[in-house]
Amino acid sequence: MNSFGTIFRVEIFGESHGKQVGVVIDGCPSGIALDEQDFMEDLQRRRSGKIGTTPRIEADLPHIVSGVFDGKTCGTPITILFDNTNTKSGDYANLMDHPRPGHADYTGMVKYSGYNDPRGGGHFSGRITLGIVAAGVIAKKIISPISVSAELTSVGGRTDIQECIKEVMAEKDSVGGMVACTCKNVPVGLGEPFFDSIESQISHIIFSIPAIKSIEFGSGIAAASMRGSEHNDMIVDSDGTTKTNYAGGINGGITNGNDIEFRVAVKPTASIAKPQDTYNFASGAVEPLEIVGRHDACIAVRVPVIVECATAIVLADCMLRAQ
Amino acid sequence: MNSFGTIFRVEIFGESHGKQVGVVIDGCPSGIALDEQDFMEDLQRRRSGKIGTTPRIEADLPHIVSGVFDGKTCGTPITILFDNTNTKSGDYANLMDHPRPGHADYTGMVKYSGYNDPRGGGHFSGRITLGIVAAGVIAKKIISPISVSAELTSVGGRTDIQECIKEVMAEKDSVGGMVACTCKNVPVGLGEPFFDSIESQISHIIFSIPAIKSIEFGSGIAAASMRGSEHNDMIVDSDGTTKTNYAGGINGGITNGNDIEFRVAVKPTASIAKPQDTYNFASGAVEPLEIVGRHDACIAVRVPVIVECATAIVLADCMLRAQ
Amino acid sequence: MNSFGTIFRVEIFGESHGKQVGVVIDGCPSGIALDEQDFMEDLQRRRSGKIGTTPRIEADLPHIVSGVFDGKTCGTPITILFDNTNTKSGDYANLMDHPRPGHADYTGMVKYSGYNDPRGGGHFSGRITLGIVAAGVIAKKIISPISVSAELTSVGGRTDIQECIKEVMAEKDSVGGMVACTCKNVPVGLGEPFFDSIESQISHIIFSIPAIKSIEFGSGIAAASMRGSEHNDMIVDSDGTTKTNYAGGINGGITNGNDIEFRVAVKPTASIAKPQDTYNFASGAVEPLEIVGRHDACIAVRVPVIVECATAIVLADCMLRAQ
Amino acid sequence: MNSFGTIFRVEIFGESHGKQVGVVIDGCPSGIALDEQDFMEDLQRRRSGKIGTTPRIEADLPHIVSGVFDGKTCGTPITILFDNTNTKSGDYANLMDHPRPGHADYTGMVKYSGYNDPRGGGHFSGRITLGIVAAGVIAKKIISPISVSAELTSVGGRTDIQECIKEVMAEKDSVGGMVACTCKNVPVGLGEPFFDSIESQISHIIFSIPAIKSIEFGSGIAAASMRGSEHNDMIVDSDGTTKTNYAGGINGGITNGNDIEFRVAVKPTASIAKPQDTYNFASGAVEPLEIVGRHDACIAVRVPVIVECATAIVLADCMLRAQ
Repeated sequence: MNSFGTIFRVEIFGESHGKQVGVVIDGCPSGIALDEQDFMEDLQRRRSGKIGTTPRIEADLPHIVSGVFDGKTCGTPITILFDNTNTKSGDYANLMDHPRPGHADYTGMVKYSGYNDPRGGGHFSGRITLGIVAAGVIAKKIISPISVSAELTSVGGRTDIQECIKEVMAEKDSVGGMVACTCKNVPVGLGEPFFDSIESQISHIIFSIPAIKSIEFGSGIAAASMRGSEHNDMIVDSDGTTKTNYAGGINGGITNGNDIEFRVAVKPTASIAKPQDTYNFASGAVEPLEIVGRHDACIAVRVPVIVECATAIVLADCMLRAQ
Repeated sequence: MNSFGTIFRVEIFGESHGKQVGVVIDGCPSGIALDEQDFMEDLQRRRSGKIGTTPRIEADLPHIVSGVFDGKTCGTPITILFDNTNTKSGDYANLMDHPRPGHADYTGMVKYSGYNDPRGGGHFSGRITLGIVAAGVIAKKIISPISVSAELTSVGGRTDIQECIKEVMAEKDSVGGMVACTCKNVPVGLGEPFFDSIESQISHIIFSIPAIKSIEFGSGIAAASMRGSEHNDMIVDSDGTTKTNYAGGINGGITNGNDIEFRVAVKPTASIAKPQDTYNFASGAVEPLEIVGRHDACIAVRVPVIVECATAIVLADCMLRAQ
Repeated sequence: MNSFGTIFRVEIFGESHGKQVGVVIDGCPSGIALDEQDFMEDLQRRRSGKIGTTPRIEADLPHIVSGVFDGKTCGTPITILFDNTNTKSGDYANLMDHPRPGHADYTGMVKYSGYNDPRGGGHFSGRITLGIVAAGVIAKKIISPISVSAELTSVGGRTDIQECIKEVMAEKDSVGGMVACTCKNVPVGLGEPFFDSIESQISHIIFSIPAIKSIEFGSGIAAASMRGSEHNDMIVDSDGTTKTNYAGGINGGITNGNDIEFRVAVKPTASIAKPQDTYNFASGAVEPLEIVGRHDACIAVRVPVIVECATAIVLADCMLRAQ
Repeated sequence: MNSFGTIFRVEIFGESHGKQVGVVIDGCPSGIALDEQDFMEDLQRRRSGKIGTTPRIEADLPHIVSGVFDGKTCGTPITILFDNTNTKSGDYANLMDHPRPGHADYTGMVKYSGYNDPRGGGHFSGRITLGIVAAGVIAKKIISPISVSAELTSVGGRTDIQECIKEVMAEKDSVGGMVACTCKNVPVGLGEPFFDSIESQISHIIFSIPAIKSIEFGSGIAAASMRGSEHNDMIVDSDGTTKTNYAGGINGGITNGNDIEFRVAVKPTASIAKPQDTYNFASGAVEPLEIVGRHDACIAVRVPVIVECATAIVLADCMLRAQ
């Protein structure tokens, strides 16, 4: 299913080289100021153009076609569309026979019995995350004064990030990175025990973002090596403030009023210019595959704003459920 | 919400010191052989009794009260109940004023305006995972021949696991651990792109298990330091078999036929015998808290079977949706 | 699926001659006074014992096993169980071969491939509506000061209801009836346009009650013969009060502040003492079937309280969503 | 919420005088032949142009922007858009102060705190049913060989339908009508007991269609006056065929293989040319309201195709769930 949320519901659709990609946001409260300009900053952060990103540049102009009247949300479903204009589908003709390693070419073909749109990754394209960003821009308005902020903290295990990317590009290769996210001004009491814990909901949507390989809350992996006496966050004040934040702002699935903190690992872009050996279903043999399209050398560069927006969607839904 | 799943739906309920805890499983196909004995092996694995686990020992006998007739599932909701018998509620009287650090005492109190059952952690108790294990036992039958297997791989960062736990217990402390899970014989094509990716669904339910702090699929955190030429799993055969498995068996959110592999970090049990300083809401000051109940020194010891069962629930739901 | 609702979620389970039937109510706010005595009045109204109802009499004592602490709801799932005690399963042995006309014997057998529990109708039994009544009792507390009131208005097309039932019983037959429901003190603005209109939600749950054949809101069927100038309810005051109430209290799927009014037709009980010709799958011929169990001559007598409770569930969910 | 369905999910959006209205259909199987021409027949049946329908004529051309590749469904979300072109918004400026009786002007204003789009009924417009028709066209392909057929059987209580409408139009009034729907070739076993009974699901979506006031399955209201010996449908063959069909093709919420039969009453269009007295919130008095827009004298004329499509959506979802 391509929808997420209980009250604030987000449905994304589209294919990389189809006519349009977009999103329907249902359950947004009425009366929120919203126009197309509001999306530009986060869309700009998601766009390519920076070092390490694809030379396919799309205008990514949002078209609001429903749910907004006279500059305010109506309370009815908001639909936002983006045109696909800069498409070069010829690049992808061969993928059905010789699927790219690390991509969804093979799994998509099996799941959809060969009927999925193979051009540019089709519905598996990172381009579909435009809808997550658009929904997140609205979610950020709903959750204010909660702020959500994500940033790229390392690439290829290094903090000289731009330098690392340049080296990788020179090698016609790609590289992964780490993204850290912090939510501030979070009220106590969002989330549910067990199945709808804040961690469950955030991880659910974060793993919807292509290329994410891990998520850690607070102490994360380090927790496995810690003692309880060290890991327990001592409460120091009547508002629940803790001295440390190994919990990542969450106890029992519920926000505790401290910052929500988590980190995600982003894998290296699967598409690389270097030829790679992989199975050719037409010939029945492992053969070199050369990918000639346009690609991001480090997709992690574009991930922080998507992580922010995805997280804001969860928090907006939790807040609207809790009211 | 305390339910999970689209077709194979699991609803858990109960409080640690209430009358019963249990689970309703809706959407289970009819005609599956099932009796109470079938649950005993996995329930036994979840029970305390091993080194590092709590001296509170419950019989944990499952009572099937609906959905099974003549030794077979009916296709109607299956309800399984467990009695709470070995409760010592006196231990917990003080927790509302002086909430335990690292627990949900404070967040639960705020979320439920002070009306939640505080005895033994109430609904936040790990005891509620009995329902996940019971549902998972049924799920394992549905997904056969897929197998799901999880094990404890380290405790406190060490592989001499029993030794480490003994040291920690001697210090009246607790310790975390790592659990690794592998699913074999997985067909190609389970899961959905984006919001219902296999990673999204598995991480959602895994973070429902108390004390989990991270999840990594395949390469996991290491992906952030890798190159694409290294990370891409070369396909070597017509069934989609890959040479390496950095993808963890998933591409584009869809299973690729290789093993699903993931690892989770379990934090040290929050309840420790050692006195801890923390805020007392009655006195308005940070004061030492001594926890006198019975606790697991290393809850990670009991987690593998819960991880298995939670994962089986996801796969059963995916399989029933895909049919 | 056996669950209903978005925020206030109700899951029912059980078989007529199984161990227990019951309900899990998730999403109930915390702090509502609740004990087992609160259910007795509505359960008593649902019980048999009146003229025209079955001689199978069950105690129908509710057992609250989770979600209530110290006489108040916790905010966590509330589970309520009812024992099945007065079962005579021998009566039903023959039904798999010779399914009763007007019952779910045949459809249940096909749907569940013969694995459903045939005793006493199994999961199709009206006994499962105990869970709807229990959930409705809680819902009524949530929606206060909205009141929901349903009554039997005719039986067999007659208003001398008891007289009609006695005649029918003398003939070893059964008879249908009409039930009317009114909700008072309804705020303006509950419900949603289109798919979650108040009519959609109410009709959805009302048709969950066995034996309901129709539902009409406000003018109902008569609307098909009316003119707009006659049917339009003139607004006469600033609180939205209308002069007439052909709308049944709903415009565009949303409550308009006037009473919600609807009526339902209840079919005659399918089980009758009179022998009936119907197909015998074992012999391959139409043959007389004699039903020797205990049955209601007019199930409509027991329906009003179930209609009330079902309606209250919808309104509670709408109110909790709207907050 | 503006979505419907479990596996075959339909999300509708748009406002009468906004840029576009449309629908996203998620969960449609891949490989179904589909192009824009396929929608034209049912869209044409829904369009105005016949006697008794509004002079506002829209081209209603469907634009498929996602989910279809090379003339076949991809298995990914299908988005279909319709432009709003023939809008005359000036007609509706006054409605916020002086809401039309029988419309959602007042309820929408309260629900959305005055932020909903008032032009042409905004999101409450019957125009939003274009999305239901578009989804239904696809659903009809999925459910084949099941056929769904609905027709107008009376208007204003009369069967000389065109004559009746002409009289009503001459009086500047509007009139209601009855629509009957029959589904043939239905397999045994679709639907669920209780909450997702076929009647529950069909009535849920049917009451999403504006102006519907009642629904009856099989015997319907007449059931309330019948005896069990008369109402029980005798099974006459091994495929479950019954001699009569008072059940309307459904027992215990499950299809029994006989035709599904139901009827709905459609109220007279609320907008009439005749002046009507109703409350003016600006002046605080009941005053005559003259509605000068373009309207259907008998909206029931356009309802049959919407009923068909809505029913097909339910059956498609049931079939995909049952597989």
